[in-house]
Amino acid sequence: MTGSFRLERLAGWGVTAASGFLAGATYAGIKGEHAAFKLDLGLLYSEVPADSAGMFTTSRIPGQPVKVSRARVGRPVRAVIVNSGCANVATGEEGLHNALEMTQLAAAKLGIDPMEVLVASTGVIGTQLPMDRIRAAVPAIVLSREGGADFARAITTTDSRTKEIAFEVWTGAGSFRIGGAAKGAGMIHPNMATMLAFITTDAAVAPGFLQACLRDAVEATFNQIDIDGDMSTSDTVFLLANGTSGTGPVDAGSPAAEAFRTALNEVCLHLAREIARDGEGAQHLIQVTVGGARSLAEARRAARAVASSVSLKAAVYGRDPNWGRVVAALGASGVDLDESRLTIRLGEFTLFREGRPVPFDREAARRYLESPEIEFAISLNLGPYQASAWASDLTEEYVRLNSVYTT
Amino acid sequence: MTGSFRLERLAGWGVTAASGFLAGATYAGIKGEHAAFKLDLGLLYSEVPADSAGMFTTSRIPGQPVKVSRARVGRPVRAVIVNSGCANVATGEEGLHNALEMTQLAAAKLGIDPMEVLVASTGVIGTQLPMDRIRAAVPAIVLSREGGADFARAITTTDSRTKEIAFEVWTGAGSFRIGGAAKGAGMIHPNMATMLAFITTDAAVAPGFLQACLRDAVEATFNQIDIDGDMSTSDTVFLLANGTSGTGPVDAGSPAAEAFRTALNEVCLHLAREIARDGEGAQHLIQVTVGGARSLAEARRAARAVASSVSLKAAVYGRDPNWGRVVAALGASGVDLDESRLTIRLGEFTLFREGRPVPFDREAARRYLESPEIEFAISLNLGPYQASAWASDLTEEYVRLNSVYTT
Repeated sequence: MTGSFRLERLAGWGVTAASGFLAGATYAGIKGEHAAFKLDLGLLYSEVPADSAGMFTTSRIPGQPVKVSRARVGRPVRAVIVNSGCANVATGEEGLHNALEMTQLAAAKLGIDPMEVLVASTGVIGTQLPMDRIRAAVPAIVLSREGGADFARAITTTDSRTKEIAFEVWTGAGSFRIGGAAKGAGMIHPNMATMLAFITTDAAVAPGFLQACLRDAVEATFNQIDIDGDMSTSDTVFLLANGTSGTGPVDAGSPAAEAFRTALNEVCLHLAREIARDGEGAQHLIQVTVGGARSLAEARRAARAVASSVSLKAAVYGRDPNWGRVVAALGASGVDLDESRLTIRLGEFTLFREGRPVPFDREAARRYLESPEIEFAISLNLGPYQASAWASDLTEEYVRLNSVYTT
Repeated sequence: MTGSFRLERLAGWGVTAASGFLAGATYAGIKGEHAAFKLDLGLLYSEVPADSAGMFTTSRIPGQPVKVSRARVGRPVRAVIVNSGCANVATGEEGLHNALEMTQLAAAKLGIDPMEVLVASTGVIGTQLPMDRIRAAVPAIVLSREGGADFARAITTTDSRTKEIAFEVWTGAGSFRIGGAAKGAGMIHPNMATMLAFITTDAAVAPGFLQACLRDAVEATFNQIDIDGDMSTSDTVFLLANGTSGTGPVDAGSPAAEAFRTALNEVCLHLAREIARDGEGAQHLIQVTVGGARSLAEARRAARAVASSVSLKAAVYGRDPNWGRVVAALGASGVDLDESRLTIRLGEFTLFREGRPVPFDREAARRYLESPEIEFAISLNLGPYQASAWASDLTEEYVRLNSVYTT
């Protein structure tokens, strides 16, 4: 069933690369005066109803927008409204009403049904949205194909840059586009790490297959990144497919299924890596690859455990090839392993082979740790499965950003 | 079965407070030249065989001393040998032989069977012990009642101070003593967080009851502390009971059972809190108490989750009453909860009550966060169970200590 296909990156494009999608953003003043003129309210619109899929935080205290969107996703939708500066979490009934009103405001502007609108928020926990400002601002949003960049900017908080990607996907059955934007695990105000991602395609994708593809892609990418170990109340990934490319319907057995899966994975992988790379105060992107695991779940868990090690992240910041911390994190991960089969590499340096430390050039390893991207490659030598995880390093700047804040 | 009893703290005493225990330490040079004259090899000795209990790391890559001691604990023992500066982890067969030889060296010095010796190590992972230095140093250790303080010093790594505690326990059936020493989650060299604790008593305690009491105490104390989320390869707690106090045997139904349990819990609680307070770079001891849980396990899990939140630790460092991070950590803990029943307090300030933010005096809360000990008190309002967890805050100093190290 696998046809040949080709991906071509569309530089400078994100959520509006796919046909039929428009976006825009405005400054509503949600972050208060000190953030004057920073875009903080974005709107994404599909000219025709789009099938939708979503993945959300598993927090037991999800944000109010998560509650609203979780109930709507899976059906055809027309728009997504999103704000930064206030996460609308732990805000009680008032907060739930406000999340619903955000969808009503977008619907009124667009002349569509509020049930066709998804909503997401990111920012401070425990404060109410300034609804008067949002009511005034929604009508001011101008939608366009070029508005994708503004939309990407409006969702950022302490991100140092926007995160966008788009591809044209050439298949035997014609071409379609897929693109997206994400915001990283930055603290806002500084209050809450979170991630949001919005992905659009003009492929026509069967709803069940759309959700299955998104789940698989998220598990391999967004769920494998770690900035500070904190799971957010607001994590949300939306995928909208409006079918306007004119290529045939994509379903599990269709010729374009593999092309679609691959392109979606590439979009998620790019955005996930950019989030990790841009972790607060980060100097390095750390990739941890674990091979030789007995199952995919164990490979992912082991990679995540190593990538999440606070002391390893600090060591990377200090350019210290401190593989003992890899051993500690692996041992604590709960994953099945046999010390006498374990091998650990850092870049091209083998540090530990089959249960024994290997002498290596520490000075050269230290120089390797100056690279912006560094990789730990671990083999458990127990089975055929492999997975990766990504993290930022832990820097003094991270602590400063998340602490030295006068209330 | 509960008799009345009274605890009296014995200031300045630790592992040798109980009768029949001697200790000592020496400088073996395990940490290398830059740590010259820092005690790094300790020996604890019971003049008569002592029943023993132990709790160990659940790491899948435990240190070689853990493997040796785990097989011996539970039977009568006479001595414990311990070194700092090298954890003897991920060192293959050579490391296992070295751990065994440490017990042989102690046994030869003391004229006892090596099987009666327990061993523990803390420090760098992945390097071999300098056995020549250890062979030369063991005979130089001088044992005495006064040597408990040296023993406590010999187990420290980056701890800023030693951690010791002892009590005289007065019961209707006579009095006994219990005391202990611990090392904190400091990185050595700086390489590996770990904790070790050694507890001695001259009560006569039935072996099965001894292990049960230790397990319960460890679960409520040492297993509820968090410095940086990293579980060590070397975590070890030993409890030795030599029965020389002359008070009757302590077993589950005996008059002194409650006194013994209480005293052991107090020893573990004190040492655990001191470890958290002395976390690397720490400025605050954070206590998190979760009440109203449906089970003890859920109360402990929720308290641990909040105490482990990296972003909350950073907020405490910055004196920011940032309760949104408590919400995020609770939500992510996986514990059963109902947002509309949840209440969160910081010291005397109620921040969130039954699903709604409560206005509070942020400036006064900020001043409260200057205190050396701060407490978050959370009620889930779902059941009768309560538990606490303890943590240090996350400071720029922590990152510096764990990163800026030239290999």
